Amino acid sequence: MSKPRIEVCLSPALLHLYDTRNTVVVIIDIFRATSTISAALDNGAKCVIPVASVEECIELGVQIDNSITAGERDGKVAEGLQHGNSPLEYPRSFIEGKTLVLTTTNGTRLLHMIEGASEIVIGSFLNLDVVCGYLVDKGQNVLLACASWKDRFNLEDTLFAGAVVYKTMGSFEMNCDSARAARHLYMAIEGKGHLIEFLRDSSHYLRLSKFGLERDMEYCVTPNLHPVLPVLRGRELVVV
Amino acid sequence: MSKPRIEVCLSPALLHLYDTRNTVVVIIDIFRATSTISAALDNGAKCVIPVASVEECIELGVQIDNSITAGERDGKVAEGLQHGNSPLEYPRSFIEGKTLVLTTTNGTRLLHMIEGASEIVIGSFLNLDVVCGYLVDKGQNVLLACASWKDRFNLEDTLFAGAVVYKTMGSFEMNCDSARAARHLYMAIEGKGHLIEFLRDSSHYLRLSKFGLERDMEYCVTPNLHPVLPVLRGRELVVV
Repeated sequence: MSKPRIEVCLSPALLHLYDTRNTVVVIIDIFRATSTISAALDNGAKCVIPVASVEECIELGVQIDNSITAGERDGKVAEGLQHGNSPLEYPRSFIEGKTLVLTTTNGTRLLHMIEGASEIVIGSFLNLDVVCGYLVDKGQNVLLACASWKDRFNLEDTLFAGAVVYKTMGSFEMNCDSARAARHLYMAIEGKGHLIEFLRDSSHYLRLSKFGLERDMEYCVTPNLHPVLPVLRGRELVVV
Repeated sequence: MSKPRIEVCLSPALLHLYDTRNTVVVIIDIFRATSTISAALDNGAKCVIPVASVEECIELGVQIDNSITAGERDGKVAEGLQHGNSPLEYPRSFIEGKTLVLTTTNGTRLLHMIEGASEIVIGSFLNLDVVCGYLVDKGQNVLLACASWKDRFNLEDTLFAGAVVYKTMGSFEMNCDSARAARHLYMAIEGKGHLIEFLRDSSHYLRLSKFGLERDMEYCVTPNLHPVLPVLRGRELVVV
């Protein structure tokens, strides 16, 4: 029997090139949506509801008991919302048992673009090994989908995709140059020190560090701090 | 004075994210359009006219004296045309003084998509150092545009872009993650042997080797065999 296929989509603007039907799709938005989702759920959030707009976020916050609204625009908590996009804002003491209604630009948009997937899961360095183990066990076709930044390729999402391709080699057929490139990039860096050293020269790091978010980003690239598997159930991201 | 900017566009489907106005755009289609164009022009072709369709190719072939029509579909000379896409088909003894009317799928399409560029030039490993020298001397913003394969990211075009970014470092401002990734990929491979060894595991190599085109591809990744600078003048690619 042939192995399932693994592919990497480097930008939502390339998503139409991939068949997501009957495929496990991993949404990747390292800085910072998928990292924050992993952290909040590992710290006991009841669920995370990703929404596209600040308005929708406010509305759901009113409707849902014991909920927190969160989202940033240009590095600041968006007007009308309570909290930001930092994984560090959601320790267990704060988020346990609560519903996090989260609006982010790139990750949420990509998540809502996926059609026909057998499963949509959330990937970040914080839950890297759990995601890899799940994909191998599941044994279905996989698409690693990078949220990127306004459709522009970014290094941190690609490196995470490369880490997954590298760590699951042997379990999948791979004939996708994006996956090859991502894996080569990861292999070139892995073992040469912390990922953050490498990512300091990246467009997203340079942008977010202007908002003083260096510590956030360092946290986001630390492997396996939050070993959970967030999956989409209806409109909710939950841990299974 | 600030330095000009260098960016890499990994697929025509991402071209809308870049401003090509007043920019030198380098068209990259290593397997094999831009390699064949460089070879034919270095071997004395009067000019190369890139066209989108087989029909247009035939039509121009009839109109233009001393012309050759060329193009492949699925690895074979397209019906109604005289020659294929291989750079090896165009030695001086054959192509000198002739007009090559060439139809290719990806490279030609990308070339016709570019708007407002100050110059459109043809890049390939065959003319790598000439392209780099020209970009540095010109001192304008640069977009390295990969033709890819049906909008899918490919390794060989990206590696060439990475080679250019690497070799022109210091002459440009660079805050483009695609350019960073391409450069890192090139640096990871460069010095570890011939590029073709690396590219044997790539989707385009695997596809074209089914048509017996291994020798073609090896030729296409040999640096500086054809040190010319093809530029677009009207509808013609000529050497300046």
